[in-house]
Amino acid sequence: MSLPTRYDWKKLQDFCANVFSAAGVKKEVADVVADSLIQADLRGVESHGVVRTAIYLKRIEQDMIDPFAEVEIENESVATALVNGKNQFGSVVGTKALEVAIKKAKENGAALVGVKGSNHFGTGAYYALKAIEQEMILLVVSNASQTMPPTGGIRPFIGTNPLAVGVPAGKEEPFIMDMATSLVARGKIIVAAQKGESIPLGWAIDKGGNPTTDAEAALEGSVLPMGGPKGYAISMFIDILAGVLTGAGFGKYVNNMYENWEEPQNVGHFFIAIDIKKFIPIELFKQRMDQYICEIKAEPKAPNVEEIFIPGELEHRKVIEKKTNGIELPLKVVQELQKIGERYGLDITQAQITLNTEEVTNNG
Amino acid sequence: MSLPTRYDWKKLQDFCANVFSAAGVKKEVADVVADSLIQADLRGVESHGVVRTAIYLKRIEQDMIDPFAEVEIENESVATALVNGKNQFGSVVGTKALEVAIKKAKENGAALVGVKGSNHFGTGAYYALKAIEQEMILLVVSNASQTMPPTGGIRPFIGTNPLAVGVPAGKEEPFIMDMATSLVARGKIIVAAQKGESIPLGWAIDKGGNPTTDAEAALEGSVLPMGGPKGYAISMFIDILAGVLTGAGFGKYVNNMYENWEEPQNVGHFFIAIDIKKFIPIELFKQRMDQYICEIKAEPKAPNVEEIFIPGELEHRKVIEKKTNGIELPLKVVQELQKIGERYGLDITQAQITLNTEEVTNNG
Ligand SMILES: NC(=O)c1ccc[n+]([C@@H]2O[C@H](COP(=O)([O-])OP(=O)(O)OC[C@H]3O[C@@H](n4cnc5c(N)ncnc54)[C@H](O)[C@@H]3O)[C@@H](O)[C@H]2O)c1
Ligand SMILES: NC(=O)c1ccc[n+]([C@@H]2O[C@H](COP(=O)([O-])OP(=O)(O)OC[C@H]3O[C@@H](n4cnc5c(N)ncnc54)[C@H](O)[C@@H]3O)[C@@H](O)[C@H]2O)c1
Repeated sequence: MSLPTRYDWKKLQDFCANVFSAAGVKKEVADVVADSLIQADLRGVESHGVVRTAIYLKRIEQDMIDPFAEVEIENESVATALVNGKNQFGSVVGTKALEVAIKKAKENGAALVGVKGSNHFGTGAYYALKAIEQEMILLVVSNASQTMPPTGGIRPFIGTNPLAVGVPAGKEEPFIMDMATSLVARGKIIVAAQKGESIPLGWAIDKGGNPTTDAEAALEGSVLPMGGPKGYAISMFIDILAGVLTGAGFGKYVNNMYENWEEPQNVGHFFIAIDIKKFIPIELFKQRMDQYICEIKAEPKAPNVEEIFIPGELEHRKVIEKKTNGIELPLKVVQELQKIGERYGLDITQAQITLNTEEVTNNG
Repeated sequence: MSLPTRYDWKKLQDFCANVFSAAGVKKEVADVVADSLIQADLRGVESHGVVRTAIYLKRIEQDMIDPFAEVEIENESVATALVNGKNQFGSVVGTKALEVAIKKAKENGAALVGVKGSNHFGTGAYYALKAIEQEMILLVVSNASQTMPPTGGIRPFIGTNPLAVGVPAGKEEPFIMDMATSLVARGKIIVAAQKGESIPLGWAIDKGGNPTTDAEAALEGSVLPMGGPKGYAISMFIDILAGVLTGAGFGKYVNNMYENWEEPQNVGHFFIAIDIKKFIPIELFKQRMDQYICEIKAEPKAPNVEEIFIPGELEHRKVIEKKTNGIELPLKVVQELQKIGERYGLDITQAQITLNTEEVTNNG
């Protein structure tokens, strides 16, 4: 009998929130952190899901995150704000900064909010989705600790600084682009290394600066930016907006969440919220988005391609599937969460989904 | 005796401005258009330089550009504006929109300006440089006529929609990123085709959707986005900001400058101007930028790499070199400009740089 590996998303979210609460975190904070983790799992971005529970907890315990901090607006003009995260959880800081951005954008048409003193804030899509609920366009970026070399370099200098955008549509699903600025997310190389698989040439270099297909060697080296110097430029710009401009860390001053136990991460983020109706009527915009999306999806397809997708569409389908069938977690993650639960008298097995025999057979 | 191929940048700019004036264009308009073309040549972006004089002229003559139009602000909120280019030259419309963005950003901390009813606006760096002179950060994008397929598609649907950013530094050169969202600009494939050279795999597909190294076949097919679906997503987002949101064309409704003689292009642009000092003091920002740039440039280099560059640095060096030694133009371009000049009693040879024999020998 192997351990069941599917979990009801709501119960799993409660489990995570309860873990953080039991670790002494306020309910409001625990709820946001758990919500952001589960949203990532639901969208199939497992690298940013409940797998992060352990490291987040460890960082609270080691005083590397302050779950009691009050996020502050330090500096404000009509269309801008500078938020100091005061070393609170990244997803809590990001959620607060987004609120400020949306409020100001509703008042003035658009708002730019920079953030310093934050931590790893999860996926960009988490914020993009919240902005879409408010009929706003959002562009959000964050810097991250060093993983990519500059073009011509051999060791990590910039992060895989994520870039995300949310745009509402009408009848169609919203446009949600959410990406690391590396050609592929480092998480994919971690997964390949865990499975003992090789990686395609062009994803990474080894620590000597040589192209490699060895996932282990790639993890000791650096992942490469998308499109060579173009991705390097975009990632550097994100570091400038989120780091240089806000007073957060940049380059080597964004501390590594897993390796640095001396100082907080000092991650920076940057949010741009746009009130659509200040440009054209919202209904007209939605109609134009629907038309645009439908026209792209109707394009002739390359051989063996079944469907043309809009950014965010694949992830949206995963959300629906996982809300129905549960979130599948790798055994290693389940065992880790089980151990964490035991420390606080919480039981992850209560979040398991009971499948009937036929389904279990079908799904291995 | 071959034709001299080097031109004094100022005299060449005067020649171009005089050509447009002679063609009936107002001096202010002619000056901006000529300036934007020469700036491109100086930066080594020859594809967007004086080589475009002929097509710009032809579009005026065929009533496809209206050089007398008054660019209008249609819609305005505190931090946003919608500009109608009224089918004026793209560089004139872009310059006006930038002015609006900078003025509003100075008042309110940041401004977002969307543009519809415009034409091809040249390079994004042209606007980024002007913003830097005002100590502003600028992000500027434009849509363009169809050249790239969506991921999984086989024919052009989105443009190589350019993305440019300007950020001032202190002692160091400013950060200027300016790129097509294709892996490489279509101009590079045109150049390869002209030279009869092949192109690397991954740059483009032929009209059947197959990867190709044949430059001619690539021009009949589509160039590919940088980083696969990531570049597709970024290019689509640019089309949404510049096209769907502004009321300009998007996708197939952005008309091709070379092929469509029935309707104006209806290109859209989008400008985001950021007043740095609303976030941190400008001197501190410049100091942080200098530190950032110096730290990147000091990184260890891969074998055979002589120097690590900041985006915009290579182009900046070209500007200095070309301002000193002149702009080198291919014979074909010179002959075309000569013919145009003759129509208006203007002589391009007056812009030639006379080199002494030794220099001519050294430089072939
Ligand atoms: N907080 C951090 O420090 C940090 C750092 C890096 C990455 N991240 C997160 O990692 C996650 C994963 O990033 P990634 O780069 O691996 O994403 P990805 O490569 O899986 O997807 C990138 C984007 O491309 C779209 N896409 C992919 N295939 C497509 C197709 N065939 N057609 C149309 N669109 C397609 C996706 O919808 C998505 O918007 C993101 O959520 C990002 O925010 C976070
Ligand atoms: N108006 C339009 O419709 C349109 C459409 C597409 C492109 N364009 C223009 O075409 C021009 C060319 O675009 P491109 O994509 O060919 O540019 P590119 O590939 O030559 O350069 C892209 C960016 O990367 C930087 N870069 C290149 N090599 C580097 C290195 N080794 N180290 C550090 N940085 C490096 C450059 O400074 C630049 O900022 C741009 O000016 C763009 O605005 C305009």
